[in-house]
Amino acid sequence: MRLEADKLAEIEAARAEVTPTRRPTVAALEEILGRPLPVLDHGFVRVVDYMGDDAAIVQAARVSYGKGTKQVSSDRALIRYLMRHRHTSPFEMCEIKLHVKLPIFVARQWIRHRTASVNEYSARYSVLDREFYLPDRELLQLVRLERSGDSVRQERLFDAPAPEARATAPQSTNNRQGREGKLEADVAADVVRRMKRAAETDFTLYEKLLGADDGVEGFGIARELARTVLPLSTYTQWYWKIDLHNLLHFLRLRADRHAQHEIRAYAEVLLDVVRRWVPLVYEAFEDYRLQAVELSAAAREAVRRALRGEPVDPESLGLGRREWDELVAALPELAGAARKG
Amino acid sequence: MRLEADKLAEIEAARAEVTPTRRPTVAALEEILGRPLPVLDHGFVRVVDYMGDDAAIVQAARVSYGKGTKQVSSDRALIRYLMRHRHTSPFEMCEIKLHVKLPIFVARQWIRHRTASVNEYSARYSVLDREFYLPDRELLQLVRLERSGDSVRQERLFDAPAPEARATAPQSTNNRQGREGKLEADVAADVVRRMKRAAETDFTLYEKLLGADDGVEGFGIARELARTVLPLSTYTQWYWKIDLHNLLHFLRLRADRHAQHEIRAYAEVLLDVVRRWVPLVYEAFEDYRLQAVELSAAAREAVRRALRGEPVDPESLGLGRREWDELVAALPELAGAARKG
Amino acid sequence: MRLEADKLAEIEAARAEVTPTRRPTVAALEEILGRPLPVLDHGFVRVVDYMGDDAAIVQAARVSYGKGTKQVSSDRALIRYLMRHRHTSPFEMCEIKLHVKLPIFVARQWIRHRTASVNEYSARYSVLDREFYLPDRELLQLVRLERSGDSVRQERLFDAPAPEARATAPQSTNNRQGREGKLEADVAADVVRRMKRAAETDFTLYEKLLGADDGVEGFGIARELARTVLPLSTYTQWYWKIDLHNLLHFLRLRADRHAQHEIRAYAEVLLDVVRRWVPLVYEAFEDYRLQAVELSAAAREAVRRALRGEPVDPESLGLGRREWDELVAALPELAGAARKG
Amino acid sequence: MRLEADKLAEIEAARAEVTPTRRPTVAALEEILGRPLPVLDHGFVRVVDYMGDDAAIVQAARVSYGKGTKQVSSDRALIRYLMRHRHTSPFEMCEIKLHVKLPIFVARQWIRHRTASVNEYSARYSVLDREFYLPDRELLQLVRLERSGDSVRQERLFDAPAPEARATAPQSTNNRQGREGKLEADVAADVVRRMKRAAETDFTLYEKLLGADDGVEGFGIARELARTVLPLSTYTQWYWKIDLHNLLHFLRLRADRHAQHEIRAYAEVLLDVVRRWVPLVYEAFEDYRLQAVELSAAAREAVRRALRGEPVDPESLGLGRREWDELVAALPELAGAARKG
Repeated sequence: MRLEADKLAEIEAARAEVTPTRRPTVAALEEILGRPLPVLDHGFVRVVDYMGDDAAIVQAARVSYGKGTKQVSSDRALIRYLMRHRHTSPFEMCEIKLHVKLPIFVARQWIRHRTASVNEYSARYSVLDREFYLPDRELLQLVRLERSGDSVRQERLFDAPAPEARATAPQSTNNRQGREGKLEADVAADVVRRMKRAAETDFTLYEKLLGADDGVEGFGIARELARTVLPLSTYTQWYWKIDLHNLLHFLRLRADRHAQHEIRAYAEVLLDVVRRWVPLVYEAFEDYRLQAVELSAAAREAVRRALRGEPVDPESLGLGRREWDELVAALPELAGAARKG
Repeated sequence: MRLEADKLAEIEAARAEVTPTRRPTVAALEEILGRPLPVLDHGFVRVVDYMGDDAAIVQAARVSYGKGTKQVSSDRALIRYLMRHRHTSPFEMCEIKLHVKLPIFVARQWIRHRTASVNEYSARYSVLDREFYLPDRELLQLVRLERSGDSVRQERLFDAPAPEARATAPQSTNNRQGREGKLEADVAADVVRRMKRAAETDFTLYEKLLGADDGVEGFGIARELARTVLPLSTYTQWYWKIDLHNLLHFLRLRADRHAQHEIRAYAEVLLDVVRRWVPLVYEAFEDYRLQAVELSAAAREAVRRALRGEPVDPESLGLGRREWDELVAALPELAGAARKG
Repeated sequence: MRLEADKLAEIEAARAEVTPTRRPTVAALEEILGRPLPVLDHGFVRVVDYMGDDAAIVQAARVSYGKGTKQVSSDRALIRYLMRHRHTSPFEMCEIKLHVKLPIFVARQWIRHRTASVNEYSARYSVLDREFYLPDRELLQLVRLERSGDSVRQERLFDAPAPEARATAPQSTNNRQGREGKLEADVAADVVRRMKRAAETDFTLYEKLLGADDGVEGFGIARELARTVLPLSTYTQWYWKIDLHNLLHFLRLRADRHAQHEIRAYAEVLLDVVRRWVPLVYEAFEDYRLQAVELSAAAREAVRRALRGEPVDPESLGLGRREWDELVAALPELAGAARKG
Repeated sequence: MRLEADKLAEIEAARAEVTPTRRPTVAALEEILGRPLPVLDHGFVRVVDYMGDDAAIVQAARVSYGKGTKQVSSDRALIRYLMRHRHTSPFEMCEIKLHVKLPIFVARQWIRHRTASVNEYSARYSVLDREFYLPDRELLQLVRLERSGDSVRQERLFDAPAPEARATAPQSTNNRQGREGKLEADVAADVVRRMKRAAETDFTLYEKLLGADDGVEGFGIARELARTVLPLSTYTQWYWKIDLHNLLHFLRLRADRHAQHEIRAYAEVLLDVVRRWVPLVYEAFEDYRLQAVELSAAAREAVRRALRGEPVDPESLGLGRREWDELVAALPELAGAARKG
């Protein structure tokens, strides 16, 4: 992430203005307020403003008159209770506002979370900077390895083969994967080079189309139309405001290992922001969401049988292959129970 | 539920109009379309309209051109996959519209679900019928038995005692409960009689306040003001429209045993409606939501230890008394593991 | 509004905690932060927290790096531009959290605004105070006078008479209104007395039903059930959090002269809060919303004809009686044009 | 719009299935149900399903038991009343589901409307067809002419010049526009050719990156990453479901002359769909929204003065140049009043 000196100066000038307030304040978040936290090659997240803290959740849940905190220990107990029983409305009582710079293809996933407010930099009215996302070479090599994994299988499921066909699909994929192996380092470098060249070419056309307006010789095409030649890797930016409940929902989905690497990079940074902002909530979120496991009716029956020392036959319980694999990943001890069957 | 003859006639007249459509149609739901399904003493649920069926979810998930169904078996597999992985947006593609008659105190809980459309009968502009909810005597006796249970404990938690204090609270409550026992049948009858008399008195005042407008001698007070003397047990009615995803969320919370008996009565009827409407979704909802169990990080650790045959000490894992009780209720075999400790 | 000394002490204790912040701060709002602003006989509004100020809207609209303000004059111009062209998203970037005490019948209107977060004091788990709303005698007299006005006519429209019938309806209503005149002061006093007695009786039953739990002899009925005998005038309270755009929408509807007096009393207080908080937005809101007039296609044609000095025949333009009356109320000069016809 | 024969066959097969229903049915909409309505060069809109009709709005507003229609004339009067007074909830009682194919840059504007349900074709899991949007030559020439108009001025306002500076900006722009004139036809053709070549090149790289998976020699990069090289003009498709109230809001903004040409093309098609579906609503929407004019406090004062025959000085009333121009565009007769001043 490069940020021009004038923008950094604007940020620091804003940070320098400190005023007294009667509102709840979180020192750990004030520390980083306004400062860009780098993500990917040119992106960032900046916390612009926030409302509320751990105590504000307790205060709302109790509809209380004062600050609502009596003891940290009882606040913690109540927050865990609310998280566990999905009493979500008190978590809506905290709010955060972010300035985010992100590639357009990430923005398109991000915007699917509708319960938030957004102001995006307008490419209808403003010229976009020549900034686009390029993957790390290492990532490219990794992605290639994983591609015969979940995403391919999910696609196959969406294409709806007969269930029997699906059972064998991953195997043949695995075979091919074995044959091809990891992307060679020099091939990965070649791929990145081609992606870069293509983006540069697109941006050059963009500037040519805009042209006359900016002193450059060109066609003077309207910005809203010229931008259509830019690649999905182009960086955009927006102000994004969301309440804590919906932010946690966003993080649960986007910090997940099934999320695309690039949006996950933003989610990881936001997890840190949440930890600074509302540490008690973060702890409860980890225990009851991030590290929690949901057992379906069939999975629960499998666990009960295993606890009774009986053998477990996933198929007869209606547990598909993938569901069983996921269950064993969460509770590795079950693998033995299945073998007993 | 009494329904005047003219209203039943209106309903049947509407039902008699059958037209051909190219849209997906669900015969099992058409059967009951428009007909009031009774709930509580005067309430009902009527399915007024619906959009989509099981296949419509598959169609949307695949963004397909035709009806989207190839085989029921693959539709079922995809629906279960979507439910399991919380890909919620395809479930939003089905919609249902209901006419509901319900007591105001139930309506106040119901309306908390914001992602729905509502048109309520207006007591600002219209006169309310003399209809109010009275609990069954049996329910009253039951409720009394349960009242030292969850609700009292939850209230105590909201009042935030020190965690140690909480551990002993339920016990003393249990003591009292033991001493008092079940509400005598004649006392329950007395309670219902008093509630009835109070509601009747309120309605009589209401009509007196309105008065002149309706031929009755009275004060001619505006309806919007006169209604303020009516009890929360008064019946209101509304048109309520919601998508399937949000309806399932509603049902998960309101068909739960922690929900108040009266709203749960509506939820039970709606579960039947969903089963008629989208049977594959209903089955997946049961398996992955209604009968599912979520294990927190600590609960998961407890299960893993028990599976390994090790003793489990809930406290050292950070599992509070209530959380442990809930876990044992879901996986009774764990009780033994704890005893081993 | 009475507030117990301990609650006022809690509020003042919370107010005494002042901390420095880098966030935008609004001194005029900090002044009243936490303090109850009285509404009706027992209600209040308390500003618990807020996020953003006038400059924050500009900052978001420009997706800028610093505080976003260069000159007040240009901020004002941009805010007015955004308001005029209904670029609503920047106004969503400000947020406010309120603690409100209000009668249940008002709460039921209020909650219809779905784009907000709410935590209500729970009458399932807590006992409600003996507090209920009683209208002023003066209000009662006023309300009676107005009741043959809008609300009655609107009801008739909903009942859908033939359009010709509607044209004469208001007249006969007016006749009756003329005949009956204003509610006598002593009759109004009698009405209030009856309303008070009824509410007192309901509360006494409520306390009797709860009984045993609170030292009082009684039935020990569950709170969630006992509350159903309370009147709609009972006070409840909640934390309510909303963004500025949606708050302005709420105010446009609820500060309107068609809104019920009681919710309008809250809206008036909230208008003052907005004026303190974001004075430039408030000014634009007044000019472009509160005091604005919308001309339908037909109304516009009427105005154009009048501007050309031509006679205006509302009926031939498709302007109904009520629509024409509303238009003349907004542009009294049109009355003359119609007479010319 | 080209649509492969197999897809058209799927559509017609689905259309052939006609079943009887008790639900309200709209013959004029059934006629086009499922059939792609072409938009731009490769896009389309298909009505996949719908719920409700004009009568359903009346039915919900009256919370009625039957079909709710007594006479078309009274339904029309009520619908116009609801539209005029912004009683929006009954319009939420109708719902429509569309399958839309559209360029990504249009999709990005479209998705800003959050109160809708979306299922987009996934470029993470599926390969995108080689289809991208190219503007008409005529459009390009037109756009160039307009570009010194609103969009440029709006941009300047967002950049926040001093108000005086803004007053002269449009003039110099006009000068330049005068100098340059319209884009020559052969230059426009050149621009389109360059845009086409760039998109083709991007797609060729995309296919090369995917490669191995599809029999083509290539790099076998994951789809989610390969797609980032595609231009914003690439076509995507989605299922989109929205209620009538929110659809009208969408149309008011997107069928507006300030909307970008490409999204407006979709809005125009949707206006036709609405006209077929709910003709009474459409008529009211035209009269009270599309052709309505809003007068601010200052504009209202200007109109009143003009009606009284007094001269009008926009500046002294606080009407900026642009606001005055917009007012005169809506009420041309005002131009004379200003000259009198």
